[in-house]
Amino acid sequence: MRTHYCGQLRAEHIGETVTLCGWVDRRRDHGGVIFIDLRDREGIIQIVSDPVRTPASYNQAGDLRNEDVVQIMGRVTQRPEDSLNPKLGTGEVEIYADEILVLNAVRKPLPFQISSAESETVREELRLKYRYLDIRRERMSRNLRLRHEVIKTLRRYLEDEQGFMEVETPILTKSTPEGARDYLVPSRVNPNEWYALPQSPQLFKQLLMVAGCDRYYQIARCFRDEDLRADRQPEFTQLDMEMSFLDQEELLALNEKLMAHLFEVIKGIDLPLPLPRLTYAEAMDRYGCDKPDTRYGLELVDVSDVVTGCGFKVFADAVSKGGIVKILPIPGGNDAISNVRIKPGGDLFKEAETAGARGLAYIRVRDGEIDTIGAIKDNLSEAQKQEILTRTGAQSGHLLLFAAGDTATVNKTLDRLRQAIAREQNLIDPGKINLLWITDFPMFEWNADEKRLEALHHPFTAPFPEDLHDLKTARAQAYDIVFNGFEVGGGSLRIYQPDVQQQVFDTIGLSTEEAHEKFGFLLEAFEYGAPPHGGIAYGVDRLVMLLAGEDSIRDVISFPKTQQARCLLTTAPSTVDDKQLKELHVASTYKPKKEG
Amino acid sequence: MRTHYCGQLRAEHIGETVTLCGWVDRRRDHGGVIFIDLRDREGIIQIVSDPVRTPASYNQAGDLRNEDVVQIMGRVTQRPEDSLNPKLGTGEVEIYADEILVLNAVRKPLPFQISSAESETVREELRLKYRYLDIRRERMSRNLRLRHEVIKTLRRYLEDEQGFMEVETPILTKSTPEGARDYLVPSRVNPNEWYALPQSPQLFKQLLMVAGCDRYYQIARCFRDEDLRADRQPEFTQLDMEMSFLDQEELLALNEKLMAHLFEVIKGIDLPLPLPRLTYAEAMDRYGCDKPDTRYGLELVDVSDVVTGCGFKVFADAVSKGGIVKILPIPGGNDAISNVRIKPGGDLFKEAETAGARGLAYIRVRDGEIDTIGAIKDNLSEAQKQEILTRTGAQSGHLLLFAAGDTATVNKTLDRLRQAIAREQNLIDPGKINLLWITDFPMFEWNADEKRLEALHHPFTAPFPEDLHDLKTARAQAYDIVFNGFEVGGGSLRIYQPDVQQQVFDTIGLSTEEAHEKFGFLLEAFEYGAPPHGGIAYGVDRLVMLLAGEDSIRDVISFPKTQQARCLLTTAPSTVDDKQLKELHVASTYKPKKEG
Repeated sequence: MRTHYCGQLRAEHIGETVTLCGWVDRRRDHGGVIFIDLRDREGIIQIVSDPVRTPASYNQAGDLRNEDVVQIMGRVTQRPEDSLNPKLGTGEVEIYADEILVLNAVRKPLPFQISSAESETVREELRLKYRYLDIRRERMSRNLRLRHEVIKTLRRYLEDEQGFMEVETPILTKSTPEGARDYLVPSRVNPNEWYALPQSPQLFKQLLMVAGCDRYYQIARCFRDEDLRADRQPEFTQLDMEMSFLDQEELLALNEKLMAHLFEVIKGIDLPLPLPRLTYAEAMDRYGCDKPDTRYGLELVDVSDVVTGCGFKVFADAVSKGGIVKILPIPGGNDAISNVRIKPGGDLFKEAETAGARGLAYIRVRDGEIDTIGAIKDNLSEAQKQEILTRTGAQSGHLLLFAAGDTATVNKTLDRLRQAIAREQNLIDPGKINLLWITDFPMFEWNADEKRLEALHHPFTAPFPEDLHDLKTARAQAYDIVFNGFEVGGGSLRIYQPDVQQQVFDTIGLSTEEAHEKFGFLLEAFEYGAPPHGGIAYGVDRLVMLLAGEDSIRDVISFPKTQQARCLLTTAPSTVDDKQLKELHVASTYKPKKEG
Repeated sequence: MRTHYCGQLRAEHIGETVTLCGWVDRRRDHGGVIFIDLRDREGIIQIVSDPVRTPASYNQAGDLRNEDVVQIMGRVTQRPEDSLNPKLGTGEVEIYADEILVLNAVRKPLPFQISSAESETVREELRLKYRYLDIRRERMSRNLRLRHEVIKTLRRYLEDEQGFMEVETPILTKSTPEGARDYLVPSRVNPNEWYALPQSPQLFKQLLMVAGCDRYYQIARCFRDEDLRADRQPEFTQLDMEMSFLDQEELLALNEKLMAHLFEVIKGIDLPLPLPRLTYAEAMDRYGCDKPDTRYGLELVDVSDVVTGCGFKVFADAVSKGGIVKILPIPGGNDAISNVRIKPGGDLFKEAETAGARGLAYIRVRDGEIDTIGAIKDNLSEAQKQEILTRTGAQSGHLLLFAAGDTATVNKTLDRLRQAIAREQNLIDPGKINLLWITDFPMFEWNADEKRLEALHHPFTAPFPEDLHDLKTARAQAYDIVFNGFEVGGGSLRIYQPDVQQQVFDTIGLSTEEAHEKFGFLLEAFEYGAPPHGGIAYGVDRLVMLLAGEDSIRDVISFPKTQQARCLLTTAPSTVDDKQLKELHVASTYKPKKEG
């Protein structure tokens, strides 16, 4: 039906007769000459029609409306000098339209404009309801194409350079021990039994290692029935990898090469390898979080040892109860941040409060003088104050913000403040790309509700062999990869020896019966010769979001769901026929609360 | 942990010191020398240990059992002349094992042997329960690798040669109008509402065309809750494609090139293009089915016009009631097939009966004489008999089998018999590859239960424009691709004009309300400028099965389910916690029947 894509035509085609298909991006009438921007996936070309040179198409051209679907036959012509458009790839040429055929007309008013010549901001609900029009627009079209290129690049590197094999694993399967809620599917032929949609192919990929696949990958759809946050979706896409007979160093090196290749192809950036690494302990110490954005400084400083036993009860108590006192030093913060913002009711106070802090102490530094709250002024010695200034590297103009309390709250508080201040002070170069590894995660964290240790990752994560003597405090052979402050991937080496696995189950208080009920088939598989293995999974949605410079993963997903887990286009989920439920031997037990 | 894969080592590596990892395929002790076949994904290499040359590894080697996981360091050595093994890629070399480290031992007796040196036949239940061991075996390992290569080849051709873009569409979605039962997923956050797992991405891929994606593909997981047959799975994989601004000829040509590329890469076969085509009408006439295996002849012959009004009531009635009388002519059948097999109780009679036939008439041809049943002998004229012989091309030794009745039953009967006889007479060359298109399907078929026409494909299938005057009998712009008697792909051009779509809904008796409730969002999308478009979907499981020479798609799926829709490895589906169901606001209504 066509000879070329619109966006492909160049000066070299001048003189050719072409047939093009596409959408009317817009039409302009200039004193008897009609110009049509014709758009297809590859771009826009200018079509010209006037009563003298193209009488056959002139009337038709005048009737066209935005987004009509047309087929146009015409001659590729050099544009006049004064109408060259260097912004368009096709800007040197235009088409004189000998014939215009309307393949399909637009029959309703458009809910929003499509042309990138219009700079309309459209609210997201409307974009999602009319997603097929939203994807016609330049932004979503570019994002979906980027997503395709990212996935293609990842696949090919793994297949061609690293010998990975793609294996599809089941979607209708059994619950995996990932900790989040499962989506369930009733079985019709096995009444009262349910499939679970996979939270990840974790168990299958480990089984594939036992099966000798050696290097597996999959672009895998995963499902978590969580209460949705801004960048979560009920279903998401993971680059899932698992490999045998590698140690952690080999695995990280392979993944760094994968990332370097991706950034080279997609961004034209030469990523220096090896990537920087921080241990979990160091990341928490310096940034208060395990996915720090290291594009800017504002590192935290622990002063617990300085204030131990001091007269300021808030500081002294924090330390004596096993907590910490830390400082976020803000260069120039003295002028930029007023006391009103730090005190109750202020925006920075609220940030801190959201993280669980009850207040913020501060020191202001100016021309060698310090200005601070009474409690610090009165209760810390000169030597202590001087040590704080030295340790934070405080210069004139610095503001030092203190948080004191249990370690988790202090870190969370200062992490939030650090990020807020970096945004406010424009410390983040948006062109900068920062990737790093976080390693040496603890094996377990304390679940205060259930009063027991639980696996920080999952119970198949291998501890460092040298830490086996005290598993409770052991470090895991686990790693996350962080991209500009977002965790975009993570994984671990797995336990492949039954005795170590048993120790881990003992530590988290999982009985042999429970373990066997949950994933006995994996434990059994390990009896038949499991190789040393490990893996990683990347969040494809998040990775593409960051590469696209978007703020929401919804903008890099073709048909995403809202935070209420709804598809505004298809209206899924929806009620279904009673007949369907009857066949499945299930019923809804939902009783809507009566209003009134 | 290793320097090479086992299967990679060649004469060029002689003299190198290597580290290998893998499984003990088998161990042989030959008078003080121990030979170990070490296996990894890439193949097998012979490891040698003896007390003189490799004293350090000798004791360890003697203790190894099949499927132990080991790491071996040693020197690549030329094999002695008399022990070269041309059957192995590594057959010129062997490794003297300086060190053997057991990474993981096998702790339980193997349920079946892994080594391809063993020719044990294992029942499928056991293979599925221990799938991770089954995949270690040569057959499944080869099949999964073939599957990977097939998918990779398809992807790359579409991306690199045809400008297709991969787009992922949702798994948690709304029911699509495909006709089979949906798998449903209760929504926790929207109680009493359900997602459906997609039977295909049909609606989304059409929306992507409206969105201007132009050429879409996806390796898509699809779900159908059907009563399972031998080659069906609850979930299956489809190569799903949709493209805009192509007519049927362009679409078929593109797909033929895709298939030719696949067969060239995977099989080294040069597929002559264009592929043969049969219209649906012709396929039914000549083969009695719409997916004929044309690797052999045995074409059917319609003799309805010859027997119209004849004295044999079975024939005459069939024709007068609008049915047909057809013959399957079997060269050499006179000797090969006895009357016992054709008469009630016989195997061929049973085949016919399964298809709904009540009996089989016959004519045997020998030396110019014919031998037949009384009804034909007495009730057909010499001229009629002669016409039948002429039309079927019957020679001495032919057996002509008759079926009479309604068209569908006659075709089904003779199709079954044709296939059974082809197998029995070894008419099928297993090395032969036969691909063809079936085109010009009818738009509708009669649903006798609901007493209405229904769409043979789906209600978005476009009719031929020249058939629009009588839609009831119109041919669809639909096509299947048939590979050695299996439908491996099918698709159609889609309706993109609302008036045609309305006509189709009217014809199948779908009210405007029903249509809008079911897929109103698609119909609405079509109001905003839908391009002419069409697509196709290939059954990847079936395609790989045929390319692998397997008889069941289970043998080309990593973790398939049984015919009872169960995974014998993970035991999915299973009962779940009441707590989970409560959170989802659902309950099972199943009441097991009491035994007694």
